[in-house]
Amino acid sequence: MSQFIAVRTHDVRFPTSLLLDGSDAMNPDPDYSAAYVRLVTDADDGLEGHGFVFTIGRGNDVQVAAIESLRGYLIGRDVESLLEDMGAAWRLFVYDSQLRWLGPEKGVMHMAIGAVLNALWDLKAKRASLPLWQLLATMTPEQIVDCVDFRYLTDVLTPEDALEILHAAMPGREERTAHLLATGYPAYTTTPGWLGYDDAKLERLAKEAVAEGFTQIKLKVGSDLADDQRRLAIARAAVGEEIRIAIDANQRWDVPEAIDWVKALRKHDITWVEEPTSPDDVIGHAAISRALHPIPIATGEHMMNRVLAKQFLQADALQVLQIDAARVAGVSENLAMLLLAAKFGVRVCPHAGGVGLCEAVQHISMFDYVAVSGTTQDRFIEYVDHLHEHFVTPAKIRDGHYVAPTAPGASTEMYPASIIKYEVPRS
Amino acid sequence: MSQFIAVRTHDVRFPTSLLLDGSDAMNPDPDYSAAYVRLVTDADDGLEGHGFVFTIGRGNDVQVAAIESLRGYLIGRDVESLLEDMGAAWRLFVYDSQLRWLGPEKGVMHMAIGAVLNALWDLKAKRASLPLWQLLATMTPEQIVDCVDFRYLTDVLTPEDALEILHAAMPGREERTAHLLATGYPAYTTTPGWLGYDDAKLERLAKEAVAEGFTQIKLKVGSDLADDQRRLAIARAAVGEEIRIAIDANQRWDVPEAIDWVKALRKHDITWVEEPTSPDDVIGHAAISRALHPIPIATGEHMMNRVLAKQFLQADALQVLQIDAARVAGVSENLAMLLLAAKFGVRVCPHAGGVGLCEAVQHISMFDYVAVSGTTQDRFIEYVDHLHEHFVTPAKIRDGHYVAPTAPGASTEMYPASIIKYEVPRS
Repeated sequence: MSQFIAVRTHDVRFPTSLLLDGSDAMNPDPDYSAAYVRLVTDADDGLEGHGFVFTIGRGNDVQVAAIESLRGYLIGRDVESLLEDMGAAWRLFVYDSQLRWLGPEKGVMHMAIGAVLNALWDLKAKRASLPLWQLLATMTPEQIVDCVDFRYLTDVLTPEDALEILHAAMPGREERTAHLLATGYPAYTTTPGWLGYDDAKLERLAKEAVAEGFTQIKLKVGSDLADDQRRLAIARAAVGEEIRIAIDANQRWDVPEAIDWVKALRKHDITWVEEPTSPDDVIGHAAISRALHPIPIATGEHMMNRVLAKQFLQADALQVLQIDAARVAGVSENLAMLLLAAKFGVRVCPHAGGVGLCEAVQHISMFDYVAVSGTTQDRFIEYVDHLHEHFVTPAKIRDGHYVAPTAPGASTEMYPASIIKYEVPRS
Repeated sequence: MSQFIAVRTHDVRFPTSLLLDGSDAMNPDPDYSAAYVRLVTDADDGLEGHGFVFTIGRGNDVQVAAIESLRGYLIGRDVESLLEDMGAAWRLFVYDSQLRWLGPEKGVMHMAIGAVLNALWDLKAKRASLPLWQLLATMTPEQIVDCVDFRYLTDVLTPEDALEILHAAMPGREERTAHLLATGYPAYTTTPGWLGYDDAKLERLAKEAVAEGFTQIKLKVGSDLADDQRRLAIARAAVGEEIRIAIDANQRWDVPEAIDWVKALRKHDITWVEEPTSPDDVIGHAAISRALHPIPIATGEHMMNRVLAKQFLQADALQVLQIDAARVAGVSENLAMLLLAAKFGVRVCPHAGGVGLCEAVQHISMFDYVAVSGTTQDRFIEYVDHLHEHFVTPAKIRDGHYVAPTAPGASTEMYPASIIKYEVPRS
């Protein structure tokens, strides 16, 4: 029996804007940041649960304040019973009738809940001495379904539907686990494609990506059409015909503009168009998708919750679902999104990059491969080679694949020295 | 020439849960609260701009922290140039590339921006010595359009469309202004219908509502079907056949449940069904609307932004748009929502109640009547008789109508004594 005795938060910001790493059409100068939380217990195992919300600088303090507001739910609470029933843990936070008003289930408060739930998942996996993906992959379909909130989903996905999907994927779990440990999960890289990089750097990084074994790269677009044409031509020449090139507009366009702009670029053989417009616009994405068919539409890094995911799938408004580890209410809600995607037969290619997003989201895709979709066909986890050095068990890439983590936990733990060095003072 | 010299915030909470005022199926014990902001200038006119985010208790401190994070945008900034270009004021906050990540354009950060923008609108109206509705109603169509952000709307509403709507409503502005000053704007009341009230209190308050001149009341439903049947029968008997009765489920149901539940209640002659399910679920509301036709579907108090409003209208997922003064980014975004509704010919019946929502939103509907839709046909502003005594120029009801405010400003200013009495200490 143990209790939570502290909820420690840190406002951690990396000055990435100085190098234009991460620059795109909507985010010209991000300072990759983490509103970081550590859950401390009185158990003598020395284990803490770590989670975070990723932000790009200003407002990270607001996100920290939102996490702080959840402290009262944890201090003094029994650790074992909370970790034993992660569905109840979700409801404890998400169903608080007063906090719910601040969303509901979206934005700052929802992401704060996600950080805390992810820290709980991290602690649960550490206590089980398993990497999170493997902890999930050893749970029964019934246990998984108990972690998922089906509220507002039952018109398209019931618990019974989810059980059917999970049971159908039971055969082969061991073989896929072994395969994952041997070869990893396919990755693509965004490293060459930031808008702030000059042509020479783009060309060099694109060639390096191919040399490193990546089979897909991504370019930021949407600021200037002539620039996009030139940069896509440079990238295509650098990587050859066999490598996939995705483009990402980061919400830059309105619906008609998205259609016109991408039609002008389609000669470059585009593997998907990412975030063409507002991430909230299901109907707009559906219209874009119809107009640009057969180019797949990808979105999800700003998809606020499972209710929006449901609608994007219902409307065939995306063909690539890009879940994010720190946008929704944690692993718990990402499980719902995996199940929704499986129900619709849509592939999941997570968003990553920033601070710690690669570390966190790899577990979700690996669980999906082992226990939900059962495939990595046409699926890739995004990879960006920023800031991994701050994590105790950093995401690792080998031959264009994420290496399956073997260390216990959710890979979300940052070095204390990094936290101390980059934490900003409270105002 | 003057500058902003202070941004003062207050975490104001009223202990309404003690009386079960405001209780509904999702919000059993709200403590109506305001994350309140005062913008102070160095002008010698003594005028301050006041705005707030309405919350229902816990998390009000997070909302205050979000408002505080905007202070740096205002201190030292020239007041006149900011108030002169409210479109630029919107972009100053909403287009901040780093803060944007926290939504984008939804939840805690977006509502904080709304409070500040509303405080600016309040100050602008006070400086013009006009109530806000009248300030807006004296602006030209071009000036109004300059205040509105059309990003993500142009597939259905362009600035040219908006100009056309506003120019078409130019004839008759004076007559409608005079009519409004003489008779006010129709109201309906939710006062009888809270779930926490017993049958006798429901019956008594329903009769009082009719005696006071209201022609529509609203009942909270969705916790227990037998209770809903009984309470609707009591209310119908109390008010007679001529009075409209709306029902409000406060997001309690999934899509199939909403359809079944309301079909069981339709014999009570329901004037609209409010918030049947997740406020984010456009496609779900459209399905409910088709299944329950011709009962109108109403939603909007949790509608996070204009992009969601656009989709609800495109999908015919609502027939009553219930804009809220403190959910989106202020008057500026509500103008966009009025124009969208006008484009689709959908009526706007604002959500109000809570703390100060009646005071704030009445200005939007009155402006709509004078200068956008030109009608009050089948339109009502919600009214709840809570907590008006804390406002310097409280909303006033006469014969079932909101009395048109004549005091300068947006009616958002709370008495200092009320702020002092109900402010909670900072943690």
